Amino acid sequence: MNIEKRIEELGITLPLSSPPKAMYIPVCRTGNLLFVAGQIPSVNGEILHPGHVGEEITLEEGQEAARACIINMLSAIRGEIGDLDKVVRFVKLQAFVSSKTGFTQQHIVVNAASQLLYDIFGEPGRHARTAVGVNQLPMDAPVEIEAIVEVR
Amino acid sequence: MNIEKRIEELGITLPLSSPPKAMYIPVCRTGNLLFVAGQIPSVNGEILHPGHVGEEITLEEGQEAARACIINMLSAIRGEIGDLDKVVRFVKLQAFVSSKTGFTQQHIVVNAASQLLYDIFGEPGRHARTAVGVNQLPMDAPVEIEAIVEVR
Amino acid sequence: MNIEKRIEELGITLPLSSPPKAMYIPVCRTGNLLFVAGQIPSVNGEILHPGHVGEEITLEEGQEAARACIINMLSAIRGEIGDLDKVVRFVKLQAFVSSKTGFTQQHIVVNAASQLLYDIFGEPGRHARTAVGVNQLPMDAPVEIEAIVEVR
Repeated sequence: MNIEKRIEELGITLPLSSPPKAMYIPVCRTGNLLFVAGQIPSVNGEILHPGHVGEEITLEEGQEAARACIINMLSAIRGEIGDLDKVVRFVKLQAFVSSKTGFTQQHIVVNAASQLLYDIFGEPGRHARTAVGVNQLPMDAPVEIEAIVEVR
Repeated sequence: MNIEKRIEELGITLPLSSPPKAMYIPVCRTGNLLFVAGQIPSVNGEILHPGHVGEEITLEEGQEAARACIINMLSAIRGEIGDLDKVVRFVKLQAFVSSKTGFTQQHIVVNAASQLLYDIFGEPGRHARTAVGVNQLPMDAPVEIEAIVEVR
Repeated sequence: MNIEKRIEELGITLPLSSPPKAMYIPVCRTGNLLFVAGQIPSVNGEILHPGHVGEEITLEEGQEAARACIINMLSAIRGEIGDLDKVVRFVKLQAFVSSKTGFTQQHIVVNAASQLLYDIFGEPGRHARTAVGVNQLPMDAPVEIEAIVEVR
């Protein structure tokens, strides 16, 4: 298995991991677990589809943003461990969807993130997950996703 | 200690664990820790007490929903490890309460979940916990609860 | 390194850790990891700056509250391990900011917490982090912060 090759086959280019603008680190390792900071869909320095799903943006735009969170996450993980083939499994995703009150399909938005991890990593990409709505995310991001990842 | 017997004594029947409808798994194990996906109060395929606590539903209905989340969680855990006597301790609950803005008793709602774990497991059921309000949960669930559990 | 001395130099007095009023424990240890329950800015039994950031309270008041959460957290950790010099590293913070919809600087609020950990612990105080907004927190707290901490 060569994960970088699989990512390329899917037509995805990982950005270089960039340092957080705030007082924290993108990934913290303890033992064989990586705790990955909440990722937002920042693309070339701009938030993709800012706003609330069900209000300023659609379900489909929310899904696109969820995938962008995962792409940034993989970049952050690669920045920490150097080689994505060292991933043993994705253990847990926690996803926050900026939501209009009354929009109840956060799980469908976040499925796009889970599906992308499965498409790239296969079975080791399948994870436990929590998806909830919130009334506001930093920088008006539509989605924020953090993860716990087991690595070798 | 026989946990299944204790659950029966409390008059609770665990449902069979059902596969998530979305692209994730209900429980992911790494080492001796189980990360349990966010559980909603789905009972026979319907959300118990949909809506926001303090608005469409009462504090007491929220508590009932919180207990239903725990029952579904125990079912998911049993589906993974086969026997609830293998639980060493509940380490952490994270609970999200769909809340009317201005409703400030999320901790009282979630106490019902914590109390049920204590009633079933005794001291090993006592856990660290975070309870917050959110403006919307998937499928209009009133409560969503995830857990980290140490097992043998 | 003597963390208690450093805390004193910063002019901070840790309160005695107090038992939670609800059915949970402030810290749960599994292996070398502490899972610390969500901390609110309770000071002498009163919530510091209740309300929503961007509405009843300012960004700066939110930051003050975030620091108060960390002070309570250190008290809880000390209550568990006895000596803060046993902290190996802060692994992860999860921060919830009670937010007016439209307030998008949750990360700036939470930076105050991260900065204080860095000021006290130095590099081991640097952590992965997720910061999100929510529409309501228990007891109208403006901020709630939980942590995962590696200890020896």
